[in-house]
Amino acid sequence: MKPERTSRRAFLKLGAVAVGALTSRGWGSPQRVLGAPRRPYGERSPFEKSVRYFTPSATPGTASSRTPLQDQYGIITPSSLHFERHHAGVPQIHPDHHHLLVHGLVDRPMALTMEELRRFPCVSRICFIECAGNSSREQEGRPGPDPQKSHGLLSCSEWTGVPLKLLLDDVGLKPAARWVIAEGADACRMARSIPLEKAFDDALVAYGQNGEALRPEQGYPLRLVLPGWEGNVNIKWLGRLHVVDQPYMTREEAAIYTDLMPDGKAQQFTFVMEAKSVITRPAGGQTLPSAGFYEITGLAWSGRGRVIRVEVSTNAGKDWQDAQLNEPVLPKALTRFSVPWSWDGQETSLQSRCTDETGYVQPSRDQLIAVRGVHPGPDGLDHYNGIKIWYVHRDGQVSHV
Amino acid sequence: MKPERTSRRAFLKLGAVAVGALTSRGWGSPQRVLGAPRRPYGERSPFEKSVRYFTPSATPGTASSRTPLQDQYGIITPSSLHFERHHAGVPQIHPDHHHLLVHGLVDRPMALTMEELRRFPCVSRICFIECAGNSSREQEGRPGPDPQKSHGLLSCSEWTGVPLKLLLDDVGLKPAARWVIAEGADACRMARSIPLEKAFDDALVAYGQNGEALRPEQGYPLRLVLPGWEGNVNIKWLGRLHVVDQPYMTREEAAIYTDLMPDGKAQQFTFVMEAKSVITRPAGGQTLPSAGFYEITGLAWSGRGRVIRVEVSTNAGKDWQDAQLNEPVLPKALTRFSVPWSWDGQETSLQSRCTDETGYVQPSRDQLIAVRGVHPGPDGLDHYNGIKIWYVHRDGQVSHV
Repeated sequence: MKPERTSRRAFLKLGAVAVGALTSRGWGSPQRVLGAPRRPYGERSPFEKSVRYFTPSATPGTASSRTPLQDQYGIITPSSLHFERHHAGVPQIHPDHHHLLVHGLVDRPMALTMEELRRFPCVSRICFIECAGNSSREQEGRPGPDPQKSHGLLSCSEWTGVPLKLLLDDVGLKPAARWVIAEGADACRMARSIPLEKAFDDALVAYGQNGEALRPEQGYPLRLVLPGWEGNVNIKWLGRLHVVDQPYMTREEAAIYTDLMPDGKAQQFTFVMEAKSVITRPAGGQTLPSAGFYEITGLAWSGRGRVIRVEVSTNAGKDWQDAQLNEPVLPKALTRFSVPWSWDGQETSLQSRCTDETGYVQPSRDQLIAVRGVHPGPDGLDHYNGIKIWYVHRDGQVSHV
Repeated sequence: MKPERTSRRAFLKLGAVAVGALTSRGWGSPQRVLGAPRRPYGERSPFEKSVRYFTPSATPGTASSRTPLQDQYGIITPSSLHFERHHAGVPQIHPDHHHLLVHGLVDRPMALTMEELRRFPCVSRICFIECAGNSSREQEGRPGPDPQKSHGLLSCSEWTGVPLKLLLDDVGLKPAARWVIAEGADACRMARSIPLEKAFDDALVAYGQNGEALRPEQGYPLRLVLPGWEGNVNIKWLGRLHVVDQPYMTREEAAIYTDLMPDGKAQQFTFVMEAKSVITRPAGGQTLPSAGFYEITGLAWSGRGRVIRVEVSTNAGKDWQDAQLNEPVLPKALTRFSVPWSWDGQETSLQSRCTDETGYVQPSRDQLIAVRGVHPGPDGLDHYNGIKIWYVHRDGQVSHV
């Protein structure tokens, strides 16, 4: 039942010119001048224009920006293009004046300088961070027209820092300790309640991102990284860890970041981002120049561990074929998938669904709405992970469905 | 025989202040002003100052710069800090005007645009690139005083591009084809001869680096990536692949990039970078503020595959203990290792040696010199991979031995 896999020979139809046409393409006169000198800290080529997309906001400090997923290669998001979500703007913090206060139900409260934190054992981990509200408008008929606008509140970095459990071991927990309140040093003191189970699992107090210090927009000089959990709890500009006996019902977990269910009740503390995938090429906003060979590629991820399977349909969901997963396939990290496709020039649709190592399969939009209902309004539906469908028109234009 | 492993409780000796001292440290008056707005393309914090080190050069176009390994977290080198080695400066190439010419002993010569190349299937791969001359002066008594100056011609990126074998399959090779000459579009037309075995193994024609387009200094818009092979053959600004029947003995493989042996003969085409490691913290140029707990960390790599073991000695080579390898441990990629260490305040030396999956063990400097001799002069000894030793003085200063 699977569509025939495209043979390698099909690549030849790309329209590459024969060598005789080289001169007309300008290859015959390449530059022979001495190039630019070294630079202490490099920058991208001035010909590269990919940027974050700014979602509209009346209040600049509470805004977000989205990663151009359609332009991303591999699984690492360039730090300069990591999505942003700020509640009081980006504070400028001098690392020599920053401290992490660890107090509350502990035996030995501490205020650690950055230099002291860097003397603790550290680990690095490649993992994604996704905003709980990513693709939240897909369910109510206002889908994003391209991967950046639909799924761009998603990025993946190599984070480096101190395992939170080492800090908690060092301060010593009192018997009543159950949760830790993580608070940012931004103007609004963004705070979330974290159960100690996660703190002792894989939580990181991170100071490094993609080999260098965190970027200011990602919490410089210190951020809590909770692999696989909704972005909002990965507190940026981390200044305080308050060990307590119960969640504190902060504004960010009582007023918002709850999941309203069809029965009118709201679920709180839906931390884990479930398995999800999106095709990034060919995708909405792009145009296929002609029928012929294309590689379909995209990203899949799960907050519960590794992605073990991605299936792609190129005929409106009738047939599905397994995509190839690009190594490395890491737990709670973006996973790059690809599948060859020979477009016959007819209208069709492209979609992907992924399965994670728990056996969970990404649901269709209809399946998801049947459980959770439709949520009109500006906030949409948090934790929406339905299958994304791109529509391919006869003229090669790709749009959302 | 192994030194006692430091217990977690030792971290407490870090000197963290009690919470009562917070006010004097300034924590009591953090900022409450609205922070900075979003940015289309982010930059690092103005408080971060780590830069590439410029090796002296009378001719700016033929110079190199070195990665600040002592500042790097994890395994990914920030693209802005990837080491440079240019033979005619950095050309500014407009991607719309760039072509890759594939010709010679082929059935269908082609000149591919960047857009055409991007329509081929692509793969991403995290791997290191190391200059053949990295740490070349260690053997003759002019060792680098810090990790950047001694081993900084080394970086690691996630590279994305077309497997070279797909391009060669597409053009079709004639029976006499054995080598391919890769030529850059820089002013000097840097060129190297590559055996087809490597081209059909894991060679990439790469246009992506760490999620976005290659940086100009790394070959924008196109570079040949030959995982595990000396940096020089990873031709930047790739413009031409000329399929031929034998190596062409270009300047870069006849005049230089050969290995002079003690018997006066020179080895050519020593492509693979053998297993090697270096401790990056504590390391030369750094100072330990006091006796107590430290985590020793560093980088290990092998051009033949995975690193399977790193051993660290903290007592002048008398005892060695296995370091922990941070996941993921990927073939031909940098691998981050670490080991806890409790410094007693006495003079000692720190060194690391690694073993790769072929069973090859990184040699000592003496073992290496016994085989290859000492090479005085500006070029030193290419492919030097001896063990690096850092000396810890009683006052906490760390220097080269």
